[in-house]
Amino acid sequence: MKILLVHAHPEPQSFCAALKSEALARLPGHGHEVRVSDLYEMNFDPVARDTDFGSRANPDYLVYALEQRHNQKAGTLKADIAAEVDKLLWCDLLLLNFPVFWFSMPAILKGWIDRVFVSGVCYGGLRFYDRGGLAGKKAMTTITIGGQRHMFGPDAVHGELETMLRPLLRGTLYYVGMEVLPPFVAWHVPYVSNEVRAGYLEDYRARLATLDDIEPLAFPSLDDFDEKLHPRRR
Amino acid sequence: MKILLVHAHPEPQSFCAALKSEALARLPGHGHEVRVSDLYEMNFDPVARDTDFGSRANPDYLVYALEQRHNQKAGTLKADIAAEVDKLLWCDLLLLNFPVFWFSMPAILKGWIDRVFVSGVCYGGLRFYDRGGLAGKKAMTTITIGGQRHMFGPDAVHGELETMLRPLLRGTLYYVGMEVLPPFVAWHVPYVSNEVRAGYLEDYRARLATLDDIEPLAFPSLDDFDEKLHPRRR
Repeated sequence: MKILLVHAHPEPQSFCAALKSEALARLPGHGHEVRVSDLYEMNFDPVARDTDFGSRANPDYLVYALEQRHNQKAGTLKADIAAEVDKLLWCDLLLLNFPVFWFSMPAILKGWIDRVFVSGVCYGGLRFYDRGGLAGKKAMTTITIGGQRHMFGPDAVHGELETMLRPLLRGTLYYVGMEVLPPFVAWHVPYVSNEVRAGYLEDYRARLATLDDIEPLAFPSLDDFDEKLHPRRR
Repeated sequence: MKILLVHAHPEPQSFCAALKSEALARLPGHGHEVRVSDLYEMNFDPVARDTDFGSRANPDYLVYALEQRHNQKAGTLKADIAAEVDKLLWCDLLLLNFPVFWFSMPAILKGWIDRVFVSGVCYGGLRFYDRGGLAGKKAMTTITIGGQRHMFGPDAVHGELETMLRPLLRGTLYYVGMEVLPPFVAWHVPYVSNEVRAGYLEDYRARLATLDDIEPLAFPSLDDFDEKLHPRRR
């Protein structure tokens, strides 16, 4: 597969960066081709704003998604966005590698999504979920988190991790049509021993070796909803 | 109440900005004092990074939360963060006013959380949820969203809105101990008529008039978990 690895950690020596390096070292050996967007290294600007657009469908009033569509077609997206859109369209698998900040992505990565998942290409109208614009691609998240494994689950203090990550897993990656693989999680990272970290890297190597075979998460199909998006009666 | 209104929309003429203006116009009449952080107007930098810290607990390796704690105590947080922390600690109610981007906040607001909800003050160790550092304060989100009301609910295409917003409502605002009021939602905003928008503003005025009386959302209490955060058997 062609894999785009998007990495977003402010400390180059972090364990999160070690997971990135592990992926870069191992994936080619499994027959994959990898490109990287290291957002902190790139000093990526995550703020969606009017200067993202070299031309305007409506110069007087900014509807961001509408201008994404217009500028993507016109070839006038700001260069930093256009370069990332190219990488996104190139890849078969999008690999997001980040530390969990507030049960979510660091802002630099959230803004990569805001600016790069352009309307018209990635979604639009009824083109979402299994009819999304990026259908046929896969996505996986590799995350480091301060919490411990037992803090997540049906009766656990934070509930299910996949519910906490729902706006990303379902509301973003699946929204644009990608098959979303279960997250790879390194738990309690700031507090664990080097042995435990080594174990995570070993687990990750096993995950990276079997990327093609992992069953994606199950999400609703638009087939179960009518053209106004009301649930179909069965 | 002392209210901090944080607004994050790139278009000053947006309906989201109209909701902000409505709050600014009405809240003083209900006896509230209001301060505003208009993040786009401030050109707020949302990226958490090493330059946020004027001194370092560990100059060789950045653990962002640890340096937040150290720099907050030392008074060496970057000025833009320190100013926002002061406003956050000043307020009785935090009002987040934003358009939903990817079932979540725009990156500029996500980064306001990343940088301003400083460890040590807002949370730390077992100080979270109903024992969070900001216990006693309230929070409310006022959001504009492209989707329609019937797209959210138990059997709806996107499931419950509050589940999609869980990392924010529970994982962030409740995490730091705030009572979280139900979101005020303006649905389908880019597509509705001026009459519908006027109706939203009217509903919002009613909401603003009764802020003191709104029942917060129910979330788990740490009383139901032991000191290792395993569920207590009853």
